[in-house]
Amino acid sequence: MERSLLYHCRALLMDEADTLLEGAYVVVEGETISSVGTQRPQGPFDREIDCGNNVLMPGLVNAHTHIPMTLLRGYGGGCDLHTWLNQWIFPTEAKLDGRAVRAGTGLALAELIAGGVTTIADMYMHTTDIAQTVLEAGISANLSCGGVYFGAPADFSPATCKDCDNQRRLTEEWHGAGNGQILVDASIHGEYTSNVPLWQWMAAYAQEKKLGMHVHVSETQSEHEACKKRWGKTPLQILDRYGVWDTRAIAAHCVWTTEEDWALMAEKGVSCIHNPVSNLKLGSGVAWIPAMKRAGVNIALGTDGVSSNNNHDMFEEMKFAAILHNGVTHDPLALLPRQVLAMASRDGARALGRRTGQIVPGYTADLILVDFDRPSLTPCHSVEDNLVYSARGSDVVMNMARGKIIYKDGTFFTLDLERIKAEVETYALPLLFGDGASLADRRN
Amino acid sequence: MERSLLYHCRALLMDEADTLLEGAYVVVEGETISSVGTQRPQGPFDREIDCGNNVLMPGLVNAHTHIPMTLLRGYGGGCDLHTWLNQWIFPTEAKLDGRAVRAGTGLALAELIAGGVTTIADMYMHTTDIAQTVLEAGISANLSCGGVYFGAPADFSPATCKDCDNQRRLTEEWHGAGNGQILVDASIHGEYTSNVPLWQWMAAYAQEKKLGMHVHVSETQSEHEACKKRWGKTPLQILDRYGVWDTRAIAAHCVWTTEEDWALMAEKGVSCIHNPVSNLKLGSGVAWIPAMKRAGVNIALGTDGVSSNNNHDMFEEMKFAAILHNGVTHDPLALLPRQVLAMASRDGARALGRRTGQIVPGYTADLILVDFDRPSLTPCHSVEDNLVYSARGSDVVMNMARGKIIYKDGTFFTLDLERIKAEVETYALPLLFGDGASLADRRN
Repeated sequence: MERSLLYHCRALLMDEADTLLEGAYVVVEGETISSVGTQRPQGPFDREIDCGNNVLMPGLVNAHTHIPMTLLRGYGGGCDLHTWLNQWIFPTEAKLDGRAVRAGTGLALAELIAGGVTTIADMYMHTTDIAQTVLEAGISANLSCGGVYFGAPADFSPATCKDCDNQRRLTEEWHGAGNGQILVDASIHGEYTSNVPLWQWMAAYAQEKKLGMHVHVSETQSEHEACKKRWGKTPLQILDRYGVWDTRAIAAHCVWTTEEDWALMAEKGVSCIHNPVSNLKLGSGVAWIPAMKRAGVNIALGTDGVSSNNNHDMFEEMKFAAILHNGVTHDPLALLPRQVLAMASRDGARALGRRTGQIVPGYTADLILVDFDRPSLTPCHSVEDNLVYSARGSDVVMNMARGKIIYKDGTFFTLDLERIKAEVETYALPLLFGDGASLADRRN
Repeated sequence: MERSLLYHCRALLMDEADTLLEGAYVVVEGETISSVGTQRPQGPFDREIDCGNNVLMPGLVNAHTHIPMTLLRGYGGGCDLHTWLNQWIFPTEAKLDGRAVRAGTGLALAELIAGGVTTIADMYMHTTDIAQTVLEAGISANLSCGGVYFGAPADFSPATCKDCDNQRRLTEEWHGAGNGQILVDASIHGEYTSNVPLWQWMAAYAQEKKLGMHVHVSETQSEHEACKKRWGKTPLQILDRYGVWDTRAIAAHCVWTTEEDWALMAEKGVSCIHNPVSNLKLGSGVAWIPAMKRAGVNIALGTDGVSSNNNHDMFEEMKFAAILHNGVTHDPLALLPRQVLAMASRDGARALGRRTGQIVPGYTADLILVDFDRPSLTPCHSVEDNLVYSARGSDVVMNMARGKIIYKDGTFFTLDLERIKAEVETYALPLLFGDGASLADRRN
C-alpha cells in the first residue's frame, strides 16, 4: 500500500477540539490517514509532499447539489422563479441525455475539485452517468435520483413506477462502488412533487438496503404553507409519519421549518443542509441556522445547483453562512468561523454518513492545501478567520481525495478539462439549445 | 502620447444602455479612452493587446474602505463589536506610524489591483502616506481623513483642531495630484464622533476648496437612535442642517436610514455607499437598497476595511449585494445583475465625481479583463450573470489603470509585492504586536 508523508503543514484538523497543529506531519496509507503529529514519523515513504507552511485542512463536503445543472449556469436569469423553472429550466432539462450529463458533470467536477471539495451529495437525473464520471474523477459522492410521483395514490405500483426503477437500478449498480467512494441514497424530491405511496416505498427501501435519505424540505414559503394546508402538518412532520426519517437523512434548505420541526430533526438525527446562496438568490429566505443549531440539529452546507448560485465555491458558501446570520439577527457572534468550518467538513461528513471531514487517523485521506501566502490571506492573525472570511475556492492549491492527489497548482490529474469543455461546447450545448443559437443570443 | 489598441474583446461597456459589444476594439490614448467600436481602427499603435475573447469591463470602484487596516485582517474576532473595537482595534491602531501605514496600504493595493479595482474612496489616518503609496501604484483614489471632534463646542478652534490641520495639509499637498489621480475629500468620521463646529467648518471648507464629502452614516441602530435622541433628527438630517451635504457627498452604510433620509439624499445628490459584507459580519443589519434606489438615491459599493470583511474582493461584494436583497425581501428580482454591476462601476464613479466606470470615449482608461475560459465561468449564457453571480476577484487577469497596465496574469508592474510583504512582516506587524508574539499566539 502506498505511503505518503505531508510535512511542513499548518494543519487545521477539524477534530472535535478544533485543533490547529503547527509544523504538522500527516501520513497517508492507501485511502486512509494513518498518523498525525508534530514529530517526523519513520519512513520510508513512497512520496513526500512539502506543504510550504500552508494550511492543510480536510477536503470540503458539498452536501446538496445538482451538478449537471452546471450546463445551465446563468441561464434564464431576470425573471421570476415560476417563469424561470417552467419556461427556461424544465424544458431544457427534458432534452438532456447521458452524454450531456457526463459533460456537465465533468465541468462541475473541475470546479469542485479546484475549489477544494472532496465529497458531494447530489440529486439529479441520469444518475448512473453521474456515478461513472465521479468515480473516474476520484472524489466521493452520495448520489440520489430525487424520486417524484405525481399520480393518484391508488395508481401507484412499485413495479411500474419509473422513479422506483431508477432508484433500484442506481442502488444495485452503484451503492458502495469504489470501496465506498460512491454511496447511493434513497430520495424523495420533495413533499410537493410526490405522494404517500412513494414515501412509504422509499422509506421501506432505505430500511431494507440500509441507505440514507435525501429530500428537499420547506425551501419556499408557498411550498411549506401548501403542505400545511394539504396535510395539517409541515413537510418534515408528514414525511415523518411515513417513516422517511427512520434512517440517516439529509433535508435540504429547511428555510421555513419550525421549532417543532427542529425538535423532530434533532430527535431523528435528520441533518439540515443549509444553502444560503441559493436561498438568497431565489428569494426563498433565510433559514434560522443559529436557532436550529441551538435546538441540536446537525447543520451542513451545500451550494445547490449552479443555476441558482451560480458557482460551486464552498469557501464563498462558508462566508455567506458565517456573516448572513450575524446580519439578520443583529448579533456579530451568531455563528463563529469554527462552527461554519465544521459545517463544511466534519458535520457535512456526519450528515452523509462518511468517515471524512477530519484529519484524524482512520479517516479517509481527503485533504486540501490552501495557499496562505497570497496578499488576500496576508497577514494571518487567525487561520479560522482567514479561511472563512477571506479565502476563496481559488486559494486551494492541492486536492487529495481518498489518498490520491487529483489536483495541484491548476493541473487536474483525473479529469481531461479540454476534452470536457469540448464535449460541453460541441455536444451538450447544441443538444440543449440548438446549433444555431449562439451563447450571446441567449443573453437575457 | 502613447496609443494602445485592445482587440478581440467582449466589452461590457457599462454605458447607460448596458451595451455588450462582441468583437470590440478599444483605443486608449494616454490616460483616456479615445474610441470604442467593432471595426479595427486605424493605426499605428504603440501597443496591441489581444483580449482573447475575454470580458473587458470598466475597472471597479470600491467606494468605501480603510485600506491600511489590512494589517489587522482577522484580528480580534470572536468577541462582540464593542470589545472588538475598544480592546483590539483602537489600541492597535494607536501604534501605527507612516511607515506601517505605507506597508499596509501596499498590501491592500496588491489585493485591490489583482481583484480588478481601479478607483477607491478611502478614509483613514496617516493619509499623506496613503496618498504617496497610491500614487505610485497607479490607481485613482478619493482620500479623506475622517475628521473627529470630541471636545465641547465652545472649545473648538480651527487653528488648533488637529483634524482640521490634517484636512488642510492633505488638501494642500495632495488634492489633484497625478493629473487628478488623487482627489481629496472633506470628511467627517460620523455624527457620533464629532460636533457642530467641526461640521460647520468642514462644510465651509469643502465649499471653499470645491471638495467632495465622505461621512459614515447610520451604520448601526444604536448610533442612529442615539443621534435621534440627541438631536431629534437622524444623522443625515442633522448634518444637513449644517450644510454637510451641500457638495458632492458619499454616505457610507446608511443601514438604518429612513424614507425621509432617502428623499433628502435624492434631493441633495448624496450617494449611499453600500457595504453589505461588513454590515452583515458586524451584525449591523441590511440597508434597504432596492427601496433606496426606487427613491432615487445613487448607490455605490464598498468593501469597508478588511477587519470587518475580511477581504477587498469587489466581485464578492457584488454577489452579496445582488442576492442579499432578493433573500430578505423574498423577491428574486429585487436587484438585477446589471444594476449591481452599475453600482460597482458607473454609479460608483458618479458618487466619487470621476469620469470613469464606463468604457466610453473621453472617460479615463480604467479597464479590466476577466478570464471567461475558467471552468467556474463556463458556460456563459449571460455575461452579466456570470460576472455578478459566478466570478471572483481572482478571475481578473489584467488591470489597466489610467491607461497603464499595472497588473497582468499574477504580475504587478507598479508594486514590489515581496518588498511590501517584507515590510509588513519585519516592520509593521512587530510595531503593532511586539516582536515576541507569534501570529499563532494571537489566534482567538
